[in-house]
Amino acid sequence: MQYHVNGDLVPASEATVSVRDRGFQYGDAAFETIRAYGGVPFEWTAHRERLQRTAETLGFGHAVPDGLRDRVDETLAANDLDDAYVKLSVTRGVQPGTLTPDETVDPSVVVVVDELPRGGTEGRSVWDGPADVQTVKTRRVPDAALPADAKTHNYLNGILARLELRRAATDRFRADEALLRDTEGRVVEGATSNLFFVTEAGLRTPASDLDLLPGVTRSVVMDLAESEDFPVETGTYTVDDVREADEAFLTNSTWEIRPVATVDGIDVGTGPMTKLLQRLYDERVESECY
Amino acid sequence: MQYHVNGDLVPASEATVSVRDRGFQYGDAAFETIRAYGGVPFEWTAHRERLQRTAETLGFGHAVPDGLRDRVDETLAANDLDDAYVKLSVTRGVQPGTLTPDETVDPSVVVVVDELPRGGTEGRSVWDGPADVQTVKTRRVPDAALPADAKTHNYLNGILARLELRRAATDRFRADEALLRDTEGRVVEGATSNLFFVTEAGLRTPASDLDLLPGVTRSVVMDLAESEDFPVETGTYTVDDVREADEAFLTNSTWEIRPVATVDGIDVGTGPMTKLLQRLYDERVESECY
Repeated sequence: MQYHVNGDLVPASEATVSVRDRGFQYGDAAFETIRAYGGVPFEWTAHRERLQRTAETLGFGHAVPDGLRDRVDETLAANDLDDAYVKLSVTRGVQPGTLTPDETVDPSVVVVVDELPRGGTEGRSVWDGPADVQTVKTRRVPDAALPADAKTHNYLNGILARLELRRAATDRFRADEALLRDTEGRVVEGATSNLFFVTEAGLRTPASDLDLLPGVTRSVVMDLAESEDFPVETGTYTVDDVREADEAFLTNSTWEIRPVATVDGIDVGTGPMTKLLQRLYDERVESECY
Repeated sequence: MQYHVNGDLVPASEATVSVRDRGFQYGDAAFETIRAYGGVPFEWTAHRERLQRTAETLGFGHAVPDGLRDRVDETLAANDLDDAYVKLSVTRGVQPGTLTPDETVDPSVVVVVDELPRGGTEGRSVWDGPADVQTVKTRRVPDAALPADAKTHNYLNGILARLELRRAATDRFRADEALLRDTEGRVVEGATSNLFFVTEAGLRTPASDLDLLPGVTRSVVMDLAESEDFPVETGTYTVDDVREADEAFLTNSTWEIRPVATVDGIDVGTGPMTKLLQRLYDERVESECY
């Protein structure tokens, strides 16, 4: 595999950054995870715009270079990949001094790719089955400490949430995704996914003014539901609301729409709404990328 | 300059980690900042123990290698440095998959050094003058989201706090350190320092059961004060308590004890307690390291 590092394609084994890069020292970097279908990065514009917003939140929006799409395309082409996972990172680079950032930024730009199955109507999912979800003690970092809509290399909050699943695992059962609440106990999101659930009243997802990262896939799903006259209610929900749901599913760029089998061991299960949205999502991917 | 990377001394320009290292991708790493005086890393045992605790919090305590002190010593010797800044990092390394950590860890170990002035009774401070401190809007990440006593490469919270100082700066004035409060509004710490202040009642510092990282230097200062029969009161304080103090100072391994000139533009200033503790600190360094 070849990766793209600071303008050059290099073998994965030689793809490195300086130990003084602020991306390494402080997680001082913006990133996006994107899925490519048939060589086309899905929802590129939405991802590129969010990357820019994150960099602006971190104070180096002015330093994000043009031509990022070219670097992604070159990386896919160099590896002869059509269907792939793409991780695009822009860091504040190496700077003199210690913590306080300098306004002069020479960013590091990294593109990492990996092969994934085909998507769309003829594709198959990357996951083995519906997700078992578990509520964890680790609370989502509040927006007041780190803006919730910034997607950065500070990802220990999600890692600690996933570690709780490992610690709680038995020989027979280990949950797939951690469900995080905010410091007030409201459900916000999974460690790497957004949550939707279905009740008699319709489709629901935690509101984006809570401390969560409103994903690109979440936005596509809301758009698809709207187009079928199933508007999504955004609000404030408890874990009990999710446990008592008729259906639930998780979304992210890689998983797309992953049904939830259980929440804290309670059967939630999939159903017609999840299946309909999966089909619509596949059709959207098929028509836009293949 | 030469740095130590995964067991080898390498020129600083070639000191790198893989772009797939979890230290880079997620800030999934423990670190310590240590000051060496006369070639001796000050308070080595306290730093080594905290590094271990951080790695245990992150679930890779078992993977931290022995012989870290040797790597630090070798790096100082290779650069012919007696008085130095030392940053020692241990990451979870490269792992297959994405966010969920694997129990099998091949850590990356990095030692970065830089020259500093001599310390001790014949030394001089690394800072130019007393610190101007400014309260910031960014709140300290709560312990419930990321254990407060873990010193990790997730440092954007402090960076965002420091960015507020840059944004508030004028041609004539820019604060040196950001003072963070917790989500309840209680004073906790600086972006890279602990805070002490002096009132008629004595020496005070925010309690370590608040959301703060109790520094090694903070602990040395509490010990020195105790030995002079000035016990430190630990408690819960507001910004007003600090603004109205007779003296205030910041502590960290590099700054040692740095007096505070102003808090939010209000003169606090230095005084006999700060000067006494600085002298005692210098004597401790002199006797232990030179």
